[in-house]
Amino acid sequence: MKQPVRIAVTGAAGGISYSLLFKIAAGEVLGSDQPVILQLLEITPAMDALRGVAMELQDCAYPLLQGVVLSDDPTVAFKDADYAFLVGARPRGPGMERKDLLEANAAIFSVQGKALNDVASRQVKVLVVGNPANTNALIAARNAPDLDPTQFTAMTRLDHNRAVGLAANKTGFATPTINRVTIWGNHSVTQVPDLYHADVAGEEAVDAVGEDWYKNTFIETVQKRGAAIIDARGASSSASAAQAAIDHMRDWALGTYEGDWVSMAIPSDGSYGVAKGIIYSFPVRCAFGRYEIVQGLEINDFIAGKMKASEQELIEERDAVASLLPAETEAHLENVQIADRSNRELNARGLNADEKAVFTERF
Amino acid sequence: MKQPVRIAVTGAAGGISYSLLFKIAAGEVLGSDQPVILQLLEITPAMDALRGVAMELQDCAYPLLQGVVLSDDPTVAFKDADYAFLVGARPRGPGMERKDLLEANAAIFSVQGKALNDVASRQVKVLVVGNPANTNALIAARNAPDLDPTQFTAMTRLDHNRAVGLAANKTGFATPTINRVTIWGNHSVTQVPDLYHADVAGEEAVDAVGEDWYKNTFIETVQKRGAAIIDARGASSSASAAQAAIDHMRDWALGTYEGDWVSMAIPSDGSYGVAKGIIYSFPVRCAFGRYEIVQGLEINDFIAGKMKASEQELIEERDAVASLLPAETEAHLENVQIADRSNRELNARGLNADEKAVFTERF
Repeated sequence: MKQPVRIAVTGAAGGISYSLLFKIAAGEVLGSDQPVILQLLEITPAMDALRGVAMELQDCAYPLLQGVVLSDDPTVAFKDADYAFLVGARPRGPGMERKDLLEANAAIFSVQGKALNDVASRQVKVLVVGNPANTNALIAARNAPDLDPTQFTAMTRLDHNRAVGLAANKTGFATPTINRVTIWGNHSVTQVPDLYHADVAGEEAVDAVGEDWYKNTFIETVQKRGAAIIDARGASSSASAAQAAIDHMRDWALGTYEGDWVSMAIPSDGSYGVAKGIIYSFPVRCAFGRYEIVQGLEINDFIAGKMKASEQELIEERDAVASLLPAETEAHLENVQIADRSNRELNARGLNADEKAVFTERF
Repeated sequence: MKQPVRIAVTGAAGGISYSLLFKIAAGEVLGSDQPVILQLLEITPAMDALRGVAMELQDCAYPLLQGVVLSDDPTVAFKDADYAFLVGARPRGPGMERKDLLEANAAIFSVQGKALNDVASRQVKVLVVGNPANTNALIAARNAPDLDPTQFTAMTRLDHNRAVGLAANKTGFATPTINRVTIWGNHSVTQVPDLYHADVAGEEAVDAVGEDWYKNTFIETVQKRGAAIIDARGASSSASAAQAAIDHMRDWALGTYEGDWVSMAIPSDGSYGVAKGIIYSFPVRCAFGRYEIVQGLEINDFIAGKMKASEQELIEERDAVASLLPAETEAHLENVQIADRSNRELNARGLNADEKAVFTERF
């Protein structure tokens, strides 16, 4: 049997984690032959509830679950972690301004970034789910100078999956026939769901759904889907957010399908003119546990304007917490470039037949 | 690609289903090559919440999910269903006596039994999760005279998994090394967690955990685990119940591991002296989509007394709703015997090499 990998999850007694943990333990991230140890972080007042969740994990008798660690100390929960799902975040309270919210979360994610820097595996893959996810990921990355910034990502996969699901529902085609959908920018209402490079069952996606409907209904529906779910369910999206987190991490670890790509919010390397350093959602392909931005897509003015607006929002978010961000060191910037170059080299030399075996098979 | 199977789930907007549906759609029951259509039943006032859940299912863009049907009419939700998870049940309200609870649920499950009888696939596999699960399953079965009673089962897999998890936690061995645990009887505090035929990493389980601890701590811990979870979490077991439902149906459909068995509450055929016809949990092995009671286990007096008490409870539950139970017809009883005989013949002739391939592989 393989050696177990350590998977840290924060906000582990919350609603999203209640769906997420039982999927991780069942093998949905890394497959049914990969044992895992769950390392769960909560705030002190939630430790009793967390023990209840751990009891239920034990009660599932998962063959793959080789251990569960519970802690309110990030240096315990992140110790040697190979994967970290940062789910917990401070929600907006009554009377809280946007800047208050950003700062409250900056405090959380700077502590967690430092802890990851100090104790996590040097190859740790970090996914920030807690909102504002992109800027929280930026804060964590900047507080982890010994890690490569490209190890820090934020989740736009829920938006990506929503876009695929909506296109499937509109056209009647199954989701595996829908490829190369992109979410650009921030995981917020400024996100840009882009169908111009996508296709549905071999037809250009914008034609398949109709350009009017795409521009006037599709984009806004995806952007505001979170609120629509709350209206219908009376509770926020938990199960679908957990599934998106699973999908994000699985594809990052095991690879994307040939002919398709996924959306991940990652440190911008300047591709498509996006300001370097902010955590921005791009179309990416994954292989060998790395991701690479899909290059060379032609961006029309309609999309370019929206991309700029979302970039602007992220720059403003960054600036709002600037006083809490450690300076970006030269070495840190160099890391981004090295990681980026390495990814490009990987892509440029192509994949041989053996290496392709690491891609998961699409049925 | 395979033809989709239809999976009906009742109480589909409730807590257990919120974990269950997203596992079914991800392929945890029937594997990653089996498309599914979910047919979801709720009471009329919960249809808005159910639409919210369906939106989230769409938002996951599951490759295997080929359709979702929402209805408050069981003849719609059960139409051609190959599998039915009966999760929804009436919980005990304030001032409600045990008999009131049994009768309120008898009303629900008699309607659902009739609907399954009228519209479900003739091979439908039914799992009752909603409590009192055993007697609810009995009521549904008796209201479905055209189906084989052995198609109706109730869930003691959560108790089974809890017993395995607890033994693993006590001994430090991984759950796959713990085999042949049994839950006898009712899914209630009278259930009988039996370790006398089990082993842990090759050692007799009762020796591995210590007989005193087994008799004085283990049994009661498993019996009262539901209440302990509520104490810790402030909410009842949902995720672990959903996982147990997945495990029950998966093993029934795809087979149990060689050298192990699972616990399922099924119509008693009189094995081990248990009154015929009541839905009683036995150790079973599954293959070819059928289950068979493990025969020939030696039952000591300690266990036998507890088995009798649980049987007595189930007889009382049955008698409390007797006025609502259609008479058991000769043909219906004959069906039980035919199904039972057929299962025995299957086992008696043994499995050839090809047939063994249907067993799922244990790593």
